[in-house]
Amino acid sequence: MVIVMDVNSTKKQIKEVTDRLNELGFRTQLIHGVKRIVIGAVGDRKAVDLVTLEQMPGVEKVVPIMHPFKMVSREAREEGTKINIKGIIIGSRKVTVMAGPCAIESKKQMSDAAAFVKKAGAHILRGGAFKPRTSPYSFQGMEEEGLKILKEVSLETSLPTVTEIIDEPSLNLALKYDVDILQIGARNMQNFRLLKTVGQIDKPILLKRGISGTIEEWLMSAEYIMSEGNEKIILCERGIRTFEHYTRNTLDLSAVPLVKQLSHLPVIVDPSHGTGERSLVLPMSLAAVAAGADGLLLEMHPEPTKALCDGAQSLPPSGLQQLVEQLRKVAHAVGRDLS
Amino acid sequence: MVIVMDVNSTKKQIKEVTDRLNELGFRTQLIHGVKRIVIGAVGDRKAVDLVTLEQMPGVEKVVPIMHPFKMVSREAREEGTKINIKGIIIGSRKVTVMAGPCAIESKKQMSDAAAFVKKAGAHILRGGAFKPRTSPYSFQGMEEEGLKILKEVSLETSLPTVTEIIDEPSLNLALKYDVDILQIGARNMQNFRLLKTVGQIDKPILLKRGISGTIEEWLMSAEYIMSEGNEKIILCERGIRTFEHYTRNTLDLSAVPLVKQLSHLPVIVDPSHGTGERSLVLPMSLAAVAAGADGLLLEMHPEPTKALCDGAQSLPPSGLQQLVEQLRKVAHAVGRDLS
Amino acid sequence: MVIVMDVNSTKKQIKEVTDRLNELGFRTQLIHGVKRIVIGAVGDRKAVDLVTLEQMPGVEKVVPIMHPFKMVSREAREEGTKINIKGIIIGSRKVTVMAGPCAIESKKQMSDAAAFVKKAGAHILRGGAFKPRTSPYSFQGMEEEGLKILKEVSLETSLPTVTEIIDEPSLNLALKYDVDILQIGARNMQNFRLLKTVGQIDKPILLKRGISGTIEEWLMSAEYIMSEGNEKIILCERGIRTFEHYTRNTLDLSAVPLVKQLSHLPVIVDPSHGTGERSLVLPMSLAAVAAGADGLLLEMHPEPTKALCDGAQSLPPSGLQQLVEQLRKVAHAVGRDLS
Amino acid sequence: MVIVMDVNSTKKQIKEVTDRLNELGFRTQLIHGVKRIVIGAVGDRKAVDLVTLEQMPGVEKVVPIMHPFKMVSREAREEGTKINIKGIIIGSRKVTVMAGPCAIESKKQMSDAAAFVKKAGAHILRGGAFKPRTSPYSFQGMEEEGLKILKEVSLETSLPTVTEIIDEPSLNLALKYDVDILQIGARNMQNFRLLKTVGQIDKPILLKRGISGTIEEWLMSAEYIMSEGNEKIILCERGIRTFEHYTRNTLDLSAVPLVKQLSHLPVIVDPSHGTGERSLVLPMSLAAVAAGADGLLLEMHPEPTKALCDGAQSLPPSGLQQLVEQLRKVAHAVGRDLS
Repeated sequence: MVIVMDVNSTKKQIKEVTDRLNELGFRTQLIHGVKRIVIGAVGDRKAVDLVTLEQMPGVEKVVPIMHPFKMVSREAREEGTKINIKGIIIGSRKVTVMAGPCAIESKKQMSDAAAFVKKAGAHILRGGAFKPRTSPYSFQGMEEEGLKILKEVSLETSLPTVTEIIDEPSLNLALKYDVDILQIGARNMQNFRLLKTVGQIDKPILLKRGISGTIEEWLMSAEYIMSEGNEKIILCERGIRTFEHYTRNTLDLSAVPLVKQLSHLPVIVDPSHGTGERSLVLPMSLAAVAAGADGLLLEMHPEPTKALCDGAQSLPPSGLQQLVEQLRKVAHAVGRDLS
Repeated sequence: MVIVMDVNSTKKQIKEVTDRLNELGFRTQLIHGVKRIVIGAVGDRKAVDLVTLEQMPGVEKVVPIMHPFKMVSREAREEGTKINIKGIIIGSRKVTVMAGPCAIESKKQMSDAAAFVKKAGAHILRGGAFKPRTSPYSFQGMEEEGLKILKEVSLETSLPTVTEIIDEPSLNLALKYDVDILQIGARNMQNFRLLKTVGQIDKPILLKRGISGTIEEWLMSAEYIMSEGNEKIILCERGIRTFEHYTRNTLDLSAVPLVKQLSHLPVIVDPSHGTGERSLVLPMSLAAVAAGADGLLLEMHPEPTKALCDGAQSLPPSGLQQLVEQLRKVAHAVGRDLS
Repeated sequence: MVIVMDVNSTKKQIKEVTDRLNELGFRTQLIHGVKRIVIGAVGDRKAVDLVTLEQMPGVEKVVPIMHPFKMVSREAREEGTKINIKGIIIGSRKVTVMAGPCAIESKKQMSDAAAFVKKAGAHILRGGAFKPRTSPYSFQGMEEEGLKILKEVSLETSLPTVTEIIDEPSLNLALKYDVDILQIGARNMQNFRLLKTVGQIDKPILLKRGISGTIEEWLMSAEYIMSEGNEKIILCERGIRTFEHYTRNTLDLSAVPLVKQLSHLPVIVDPSHGTGERSLVLPMSLAAVAAGADGLLLEMHPEPTKALCDGAQSLPPSGLQQLVEQLRKVAHAVGRDLS
Repeated sequence: MVIVMDVNSTKKQIKEVTDRLNELGFRTQLIHGVKRIVIGAVGDRKAVDLVTLEQMPGVEKVVPIMHPFKMVSREAREEGTKINIKGIIIGSRKVTVMAGPCAIESKKQMSDAAAFVKKAGAHILRGGAFKPRTSPYSFQGMEEEGLKILKEVSLETSLPTVTEIIDEPSLNLALKYDVDILQIGARNMQNFRLLKTVGQIDKPILLKRGISGTIEEWLMSAEYIMSEGNEKIILCERGIRTFEHYTRNTLDLSAVPLVKQLSHLPVIVDPSHGTGERSLVLPMSLAAVAAGADGLLLEMHPEPTKALCDGAQSLPPSGLQQLVEQLRKVAHAVGRDLS
């Protein structure tokens, strides 16, 4: 890291900063600039909060040089992480499609959804039992009853499942009903307590990027999970909040190849939330795979017009079928295949 | 609300939409536009998820007319809510200053801090025991030990206290040690489970705006709390995330007068997090009160250069003293006073 | 459009608003809400500035229902606009690749660049003679000398050309040297004087989206050009400014399919500026075409390490070659081809 | 500046980078990090485009240490710049209020406006003759006719004037009719040609911050003007574009004290565009002055409900009067006065 001293900083102040850095285990080196002294500090950035240095007398600012994430970084593991979900390998040459309703509403709805998912050639069934909603007056999910349905349908169809958890009680229920992938939603990307908790279990975690999460913060949240021991992390880009309001969010597809450079973790894309608009789901799904995504998370509802949640962005069954067919061609064009 | 039908929508589709709206308790009225039919729907927006209407066949879009919040809205209660914290009335003519360290570090640090807070003429002592941090390698707070210290210092100085809670265990500890105001941090503005939980207790809640929370979402989060029964909510603007990076966040002071128009709840401002830069805290504090804020939440550390957290934005004791003095003059200029 | 009246608006105020609307040629219809009157107004939105209505006494707000653009909208012309550049048809089934250096630096540089562009199978040569730069101390372009070089190289290689113009003098020079496509850069998307001027000539215009331009504003800027008579407009998505700083901009690929729904104009993508990072240009190019883009605008420099401008995002010649090869496969996968 | 070399960079690459830096006049110094080499480079950042270094083989990234602006920086001139407009000193202890209609509509409108401006105790009359409008179908200003009216009213009332120019023809007209302050609007903050042109004349320039302009870019645009010789620059914060849509823009008041730290130029605030909402203009005006602004630019219309432009954010005459009265008190509270 580099510490820029103030134009008017004194020798004494410079000495105090270098002493402090040495104390913290950094090796230091002075650079005498035209007007200022700059201190190069070599060592483990984990050892220090940059902000505490920044307010030592005479310090103008601290400029970090290296990325703050360690265990999730590509440097820590050159080969990409592969995560095996009952034989489906996320992070492999094969692209994985997860699809299903935003919210679990009934046994019939989920059975129908699962049949369509299977028929379309998708691989994993999604369905939410705990729904974080902006309004307290909106449908909040079927909770345990929903997880029970998800489990039944999974057994009937042999489809692995993914569901969102929002706190410890919902996590425990998801474990009880043996969901295959646990999703941390965008609003919980920085719920550090929850991240630590899922870091201590042995289940794949699908970590969505927060609506205003930087790529650095997102990877630091993955670092929270991995630093507790759980290495099975799937990152999911789902759109960020910008000034543009014709789409619900702005899907940041450049995050896909960039994260694959920075990290060894697999990355998938959720174009349903990412755009909020059914008609954009197909083109953005194709684009996601062309950009290098390892999979997709899609909202599909057997009858979108009756959905209790996010109907406007849900595909009908025929839409999913068509999407998977076209996706296969694009996957081939970039040297991959569908699972 | 207004439902805009597609140019090519059929009579049958229009009928289905109006039937559905009538079913949901809305009175409807057709407007025959130049090219399209628009349906005006009169009724309680709470009764329906807009998105589910939006995907009925033939519907182009749904345009909400009214704000979605009810109980927290100014229309629901014309007079401003006043919250009594051991005799300090937040939301009154008097401006309240809350100050103290970002993180509780030791008994001595908090005793010193409290003495300075009192001497400067500030009113409430802040101190964090549970610190949400971007990196798993940063100091995460003293937890229960910290709350014990906060309690002791509060008893010694008769200063009421405010502290952040992040989940149910930390909430229970804060109740055990009888903290006076419970803070929901920016990252938890949409932790709906936590909102519901604090909605069921009888303690003032300081609800920070999320880093990318719209004013509407922020008020809906307050609605979550109030709809569970707890009406003692203090809103706190603390800066939003924008493209500008010379400041840590962009403090949105226009939110202060706007929220006071939209809602009856008191609003305070946190210029420490809002700017991330100590030298901006004084001018933005004065500006906040000039804009109509009911109070301030400030970071002050007895020795900022040794702070374990957020030192760069913490005032030294002398800075707090100077701030309170100047604040008094600005408060008078806008017809208010300090508590 | 819909006019929402204040809860406390009087009968007289409501009459004044409807009278005004009728005067402006709107047909009006009252909707009696639970607490308020809402006025539906049917007519040509072009006839009125919404803001002037919004401040009539008793009006709470005006909610536009229709998009404000007319001539560029898909409703105005169902079939997509095709633009013929010396036999290359932009907006057709074939995808067009424009490539070349950010800035024209010398005859040799451009000859080399053009040879590589041709060899790689790209179709149009780009090169900037007028460079808008953030700093007055940066290289600002070769101006007329540059356009002369571009013309020579175009004649030698039969490659059509595209170059940026920034005002009337540069426009006149570009016309003098017979450039084939005139680019309006992101910073000039709302330089309305320039838009009107290019609206009066008969040359294809490549209109970049502004760094903070909404899709609506971008289409309104195209409307400026088209309303003056020039219908040959190519839209170019080039990334928007967001909070994310690992990339130079956030490339908004969802704008591609969305604009194609809203407008009949062709849309291309500039992944070089859109990401600012050479290693992201290939994946985002493939993604752009998968999302439905009609073409690409790429920075390629014969020797990127010696570029006077934007070297970090320029492809080397070998990179362009590889890109075109992979692009062909993705184009085929989505039912298109390269020109 | 600091050049971070890639983990795998070779000795040869490091030598090439240091050689290049030396060639460009930088003194270099190697820092041997744990895994990487970092090169400290001391010299004039103006001499080099960072991006061209960034793509030399072996370079991972270039981290600038110093701000890129020179002449406008506080370091270049410790004392604040004062600009004399017919006896009104902008940048002095006294706060200046500029007010008037968004658009000049008629002689009567401007005479009335000027009378109200004078009566309210404001100091400078604003009025736009060239209006950049998002839609080609909106009123675009009276142009030369408007400037003639502005001149007449200025002569009749002895009020100095400010008006927006958008290109060279409008600049020449503004000079012909002897406007006192020339405004560069937000959309032209990076119209570098226009900046250079006004840099060569001897008139005060009011430079608005672009809707997505960073503080650094804004100061670089001022640098464009000053580097051509014109030192009379007034900066004007007018709100930035963010995700929040309850206000038209987000007024970034923290930019006021920050720019005053970074630069010697005076800073004023436009709360009318900054919020887009009449009821927010008063509180944000008071806040702006409390934050340290040297003045205000306000929209006031003799009859806001008949304004051809931006009526919703225009104050009525009585509102201006009340604002000036309250402003005087806040100015006193922070040790200043009104002009």
